[in-house]
Order: sequence, then structure tokens, then C-alpha cells
Amino acid sequence: MKNNLADTICALATPAGTGAIAIIRISGPEAFTVIQQVFETAKGRKIDFENIKSHTLHFGILTNKETIIDEVLISVFKKPHSYTTEDTVEISCHGSVYIQQQVLELLYGLGARPAQAGEFTMRAFLNGRMDLSQAEAVADLIATQDANVHRIAMQQLRGGFSNEIKKLREALIHFASLIELELDFAEEDVEFANRKELKKLVSGLQFTVSGLLDSFKYGNVLKNGIPVVITGKPNAGKSTLLNTLLNEDRAIVSEIAGTTRDVIEDELVLEGYRFRFADTAGLRKSEDVIEQMGVERTLQHMTNAAVIIYMSDATTFDKETYEADLEAIINNIDFSVQHLLKVMNKTDQVDVKKLQLEGKLADDVIYISAKSKTGIELLKDALLNKINATSTGSETLVINARHAVALQKANEELLNLMDGITNKVTSDLLAFHIRQSLYHLSEITGDIYTDDLLENIFSKFCIGK
Amino acid sequence: MKNNLADTICALATPAGTGAIAIIRISGPEAFTVIQQVFETAKGRKIDFENIKSHTLHFGILTNKETIIDEVLISVFKKPHSYTTEDTVEISCHGSVYIQQQVLELLYGLGARPAQAGEFTMRAFLNGRMDLSQAEAVADLIATQDANVHRIAMQQLRGGFSNEIKKLREALIHFASLIELELDFAEEDVEFANRKELKKLVSGLQFTVSGLLDSFKYGNVLKNGIPVVITGKPNAGKSTLLNTLLNEDRAIVSEIAGTTRDVIEDELVLEGYRFRFADTAGLRKSEDVIEQMGVERTLQHMTNAAVIIYMSDATTFDKETYEADLEAIINNIDFSVQHLLKVMNKTDQVDVKKLQLEGKLADDVIYISAKSKTGIELLKDALLNKINATSTGSETLVINARHAVALQKANEELLNLMDGITNKVTSDLLAFHIRQSLYHLSEITGDIYTDDLLENIFSKFCIGK
Repeated sequence: MKNNLADTICALATPAGTGAIAIIRISGPEAFTVIQQVFETAKGRKIDFENIKSHTLHFGILTNKETIIDEVLISVFKKPHSYTTEDTVEISCHGSVYIQQQVLELLYGLGARPAQAGEFTMRAFLNGRMDLSQAEAVADLIATQDANVHRIAMQQLRGGFSNEIKKLREALIHFASLIELELDFAEEDVEFANRKELKKLVSGLQFTVSGLLDSFKYGNVLKNGIPVVITGKPNAGKSTLLNTLLNEDRAIVSEIAGTTRDVIEDELVLEGYRFRFADTAGLRKSEDVIEQMGVERTLQHMTNAAVIIYMSDATTFDKETYEADLEAIINNIDFSVQHLLKVMNKTDQVDVKKLQLEGKLADDVIYISAKSKTGIELLKDALLNKINATSTGSETLVINARHAVALQKANEELLNLMDGITNKVTSDLLAFHIRQSLYHLSEITGDIYTDDLLENIFSKFCIGK
Repeated sequence: MKNNLADTICALATPAGTGAIAIIRISGPEAFTVIQQVFETAKGRKIDFENIKSHTLHFGILTNKETIIDEVLISVFKKPHSYTTEDTVEISCHGSVYIQQQVLELLYGLGARPAQAGEFTMRAFLNGRMDLSQAEAVADLIATQDANVHRIAMQQLRGGFSNEIKKLREALIHFASLIELELDFAEEDVEFANRKELKKLVSGLQFTVSGLLDSFKYGNVLKNGIPVVITGKPNAGKSTLLNTLLNEDRAIVSEIAGTTRDVIEDELVLEGYRFRFADTAGLRKSEDVIEQMGVERTLQHMTNAAVIIYMSDATTFDKETYEADLEAIINNIDFSVQHLLKVMNKTDQVDVKKLQLEGKLADDVIYISAKSKTGIELLKDALLNKINATSTGSETLVINARHAVALQKANEELLNLMDGITNKVTSDLLAFHIRQSLYHLSEITGDIYTDDLLENIFSKFCIGK
């Protein structure tokens, strides 16, 4: 990725296609020089962009020498008071694809080059307006359609997560300065840093980092949608349940424009949580459940699920088989992440009370009828409860896999550090682990970065951001 | 269509979907009151929108009481200095579908109602910022991907066409005032308006109106794409020609994002002209060509074509059949609109010069080889020449069918008026025709309109415009 800040860059910032308005953004040292040449006010005057106020709007025309390209509105942002902290101009033109193209070609002709994906935000980062985790929050914020992820990304964009990391880094830097002081006096074998105090400090840091790491399990599930697998015997009514769940909320779901329909068909948003439902092949009988499921994919689905809905059929219920099936699932799937939600369907076709008294129904299940849509609200509440129980309750959630990896590495170095203190290793070895831990935390905020890292992060942004 | 100007309206103004930025527009008497309640600056201050300068930009957050919806940029336009001439606010937010939805719901909750399609532009019209033909130009401007239509729509938006109509109306009003003065003195049988002068004036008006009407044939073809039919015997290489024409320019065509691919596949933009090619079934032999074409649709296509490319095959050329085929086409299709372009294909497979000397090739044709791509540029030049020959050379072109209908009606009344003067009919009858002609011209500019007309025009706009 070219990241020459001397270039003036431009790109369409609004979604591709036709609309009432489109915005084309120009940023860089020549932004004003470029617009100056092609813009004039409604009265035919040129504007001296260098000498007008920032944060002002100007109506007029964009013109190449031959034709008027459009009537436009120009927004002026003077450095450092812009998104990139550079001189920036936003052109609000009619939202025609042809006009967008003409305006961009006009700007290219004047020396502004096409911005690469994420290049405006990368400049905001390189120019110190935001740290790397904040820049990454911008992409999450734009991508998400989930109220919870929106809230977390917004908090991250506004520096909440950065502050947590900053506090960790400051504590480590303080720690490092003490240890490094010892290095200066190495021959005298002094200890400026009280080892007991240090252990307490490191332990505190470990607690915070582990908390953040734990929050990633939850945050990641939120970000990618909560995977729910509906399983059970064939003809238990799994697909009917899926349809019932989706139909009831289809109207709300369809309000979210831009999501492809294929994806929506399996998804359901409940109180801002996005659930991804998967209907699996019916399970076979008794002890060999898992083996008989056969297909590796079904097992995979269940292993990755945050919630497994195990569905039985009230009309054909057999307690012995049911319990054996359940046991097989519990024994074969790792339940550290998943929660099992037991549901009994077709309760409209039996006399529930009578069968219960006779011990002919499962206990501890949610009675529903997917067909007649009874018990569905109870099931939804149960789903939400399962998810809320997963939450660590922490305000700061990690939702970015890169951050989780860096935290994991920082945590390993904290463990090494703790071991080092316990085993009374030399100060220079302690200093090494501190610096390594600091290094990984600095990767999160971008205090340390490589061009490859930036390329990797920003190439996933949309053009114009 | 509700067009209550007391309502405050809002809508997404940028294309639907995800992008870097989205714009939500609010217009109406409560625009500032609405934004005031939910916006605060980065420093947490409220802004007194009623008392700040127009055309200023303000960075801050949009918040409902519970959560921060987004960091946004607010553009402030104070009446009458806005698109609608009303107090207007534009919210520039992150281009996430979720955020767009949240912002709109927030605004609905504060009493702004969803704008209907074209309602902002309708307000610009109702509030006198533009006349109806200018408002219609906005829709054409947004819809077109053609340089020529863009130029015409831009000229229309900027009042070029309106001025022509205004001049016509002023001349008629002047005329009417003279005639109506005669009515006041009807019993005295005076003629304030010299009949000879009047005839000259009406004749001048007719000339202008006819010119505009003629321009519609060309303008309409430009707006909808220039229909070109490729016809000829089976295996003359028509489809190869189509592919050759499209392939060469496919790159350019595909640059125009947002056009569906199905349409592009038959279209070619040459020097800003959009040609719509149709490949038809091959023609059969001699005199019964047209009858044998059979399919009404092929005939329809040829009748509606602006250019017919008649393609012959150099390798199987037979002069007698060829001329009979051509004659059949010329006799059966109305050539007042279409132009015939004679093309001879597969010239790479014969010795052109030898056959020409022997009189075994058609004259007055363009020699091409669709397969080896020779002669294609000559063909393109010929296409462009045919189109340029259709142009009336007038700067003002009518591209709107509604305008053409109104002009046609105005013209009929001018004819009646001329007849009336010639036949020395009474002043009140002349006055009637003048008023009728004026009425139809006023429909174009919207000096006279009905709610149905507005509904019909603006419902075709996009939401947010």
C-alpha cells in the first residue's frame, strides 16, 4: 500500500449506485488547489479556498472548461480539523453514476489520485487522529447490523478500549523503568522494584488482560452472529420451528436493507442480538447418536454453536431414548461454550398435563408448538438468557481477532514475567518480558506497526473511508 | 401525495446500502428543533441552531438518551438558502445500514416524517426555487449515463429550456393583452392588434414550438438510447458484429457501475452517445422479405430503430437477391426516422478488389470483417454521422415526453389561432386560442399544475431527492 502522505487522494465516499446525493472526498496538501480550479459559485466567482473559514459550505458549479459537470455543494475542512487531519474537501453532487464518474475523472486530471481502500482512515491513524484499534472500530461500525456490536464498536471508536490498553501500557512502562534502573546498577545488585509489589502489579495486569481475552469469546460471537443449532430426531419439527422463528420477525429483518436475502433467511435479530440459526439433519436413535450423525459438518456445526436447541417430539416421546440421545450429545460436544436448550414440540397434539402426571414427558424442557406458534416467546426469552449468561458483564469487549491474538501474546509474556519474578531471574530477563508484553500491547494501538499490518487492516475497508 | 409544507420531512439521500458515508436529510419548519434535541458537539455542548450561521458544518454525536448512535457531521442550511428553500439539516453519518436505520428512527420519533419519493424537489418547486421543467431535469440528470442527455438535462436544470418557454409565454401574454383590450371595446369594432403583425408573431411562435417539437424526436432517442437494429441474411455475421462492437468497448461500459449487466450487454457508448443494439433474426430471400420475417416483433424493432444496419455476406454475395432484399426493406419501413447503414461482412475471406472490378460486390457499403475486426472504426464513424445528421443543431432539446405533448397541444392552438386570424374570426375566439396555448405552455413550467400531475412526476423520483 502506497501511503505517501504528500499525495492528494480522492474517492467516492457514498455507496456505489444511483441516489439523490453522492459525496466525493478529496484529502491532502493539494485538496484546495484542486477544487479551486474547477469550482465556481452560482454567481460565477472563484473562491479563495486557502482564505475561507473551515467547516463552511459553498454552492456552485463544477466545470471542466467545456461543460458544466454538476451543480454541487462543497464542504471545506481545514487541517487539522478534518477526518484525516489534512485539508479536505467534500463534493456533494447529484447521485448519478455518470456524474460521479465525471467528477472523479476531473479530479484525477488535476493530480488527485484514486484513494485506496481505507486510505482516508489510514491517514487519520498515521496523522495521529486515532489509534489503530479506533481505526479498526470504524470498519466494524460500518459493517455491523447488530445493536450490541454497534455499541461496542462505537465505544472502541471513542477510545474506550484504547484507554484500557493505555492504562496497561503505562503500568508496564512504569515497571520497566524501575527494572531498567536496576540494570544501570547491575553490578551493585540493588532492587529498586520491590518483588512482592511487582508480583501484585503483574497479577493485576494478568487479571485485566485475561478479562479482556475472556470477553473476546463473547464479543466474537456477537460480532459474527450467535450460532444456534437446532437438532433432534427427524420430524421433530425443526424446520417448522426455524420458519416460525423467522416468519414472525421477517418484517423487522427485511428492514435492514443491503443484507443479502440468503443470509437473512437463517438469521433473526432479538433485542439487538443477531442469532444465526442452523437446521441440522435429524438425529438417530440411542447410544450411537453422534456416530450416526455421520456428516462431519453437522458435528462441526454443533461444536461451534453457542446454543444447541435439542428438540423432541411430544407425540412420539420415549423417555429412555430421549435421555440416551441427550447424554450422547453432552458427552460428545464441548459444553464450555455452548448451552443446551431443551425444547419439546407438538404439545398442541397431546394432553400435556396428563402425560406429565404419567411421567411420559421430559422435564426441564420448554413446551412449544412450532406449528400453532405457542411457547415461542418463552423460547426466545430462554435464548436471550443463555446469551446474557455468557456475557462477562464487562463494559469493554474485545471484538477483533487481531486484538485477541495480541492480548494472548501479551498475556504469555506476563506469565513468563511472573515465573521470572518467582524464580528470581535476573533483571535483564524480566526487562525482556516486560518489553515483549509492551510490544504486543503496542501492536493493538498501533504505537508499533509495520506496513504489512496496515495493508492487511485497511485493505478490508471500503473505498472512500 | 401529501404535500403539506408544514410537515418536517426526512430521508436517506445517498444510495441504499453500505458505504463510507451516508447522508440523511431533514427539511421543514422543525428541522432545527429536531436536530437540536439529539445532537451535541464533541465537547458535549448543545448548539443553538436557530442562531448559528447558515452553510456551516458541525462535528459531534447523535444520541438518544441511552446510547450514542454515531459520530456525525451536521450541515446547516437556513431558509431560503437551501435546496427546498426551507430550514434544512444534512446529517453525514457512517454509511452502515444499521446506523442509517437508527438515525431515521430517531428522527421519526421526534416528529419528522419519512419523505416521499421526490418530496424534497417537489418542495423546491412549490416554494418557487425551480419551475416544473427544472424539477424534472433533476430526475433526468440523476438517471442518465449518457454525456449528451447529461448536458441537455443540466441545461434544462439551469433554466435554459424554461427561458425558451418563458419567452413564448411572454409573447403570447403580450398578444393576449392586445386582443383583450379589443374585447373591452368590442362594440366599437376597433383593432388594437394589427392582424398582419399578429400573423407574423404567431408564425414566429409556431416556428419556435415546431423546432422544439422536432428536437424531441432526437432528444427522446438520446434519452432512451439510440436503437440500432442489425439485420441481414442468416449467417451474415450479425451476432459476431454485435460481439465485436461490444467487446471492444466492454471495459469502458463496465466502468459505469450500477447499470445492470443485462442491459450493458446490448449497449455501447460511443463518444457519449448510448447505442442500443438489437440483433434480429436473419432475413429470407427476394421479394417476400418482410412477409417472411414474420415475427411482428422484428418488424416492430426495425420500425422503431433510429439506424438499421443491413448486413450482407461477401462470400455468398448475389447482387440480384441483395437489391431485392434492400428494396423490400426500404418499401416496408418508414424511413423518416431511420437511417440505413449498408455493411458487407467477411471481406477478409474474399479478394475485395477483384470482386469489385467484376461487379460482384455491392457498392456504397462499408466493408468490414467482424471476425478479424477490420472496418469496425469506419462503421462506428458512420453510426455517429447518422446520429449527428438527425440533430437539429438546436441548443435546447426537449427530452421529456410530457413537455412534447404540451408543446404539441400548444402548437395546435397556435394553428387554430393562425386560422382564426386568416379567417377574421372575432377577437374573443382569438383570445380563447391564445389562452389555451398559454395554458399548455404553463403546464410545462408548472405555472399551472394539478396535484395529480405533481404526484405523477415526483413519484418517479428516488427517495431522498
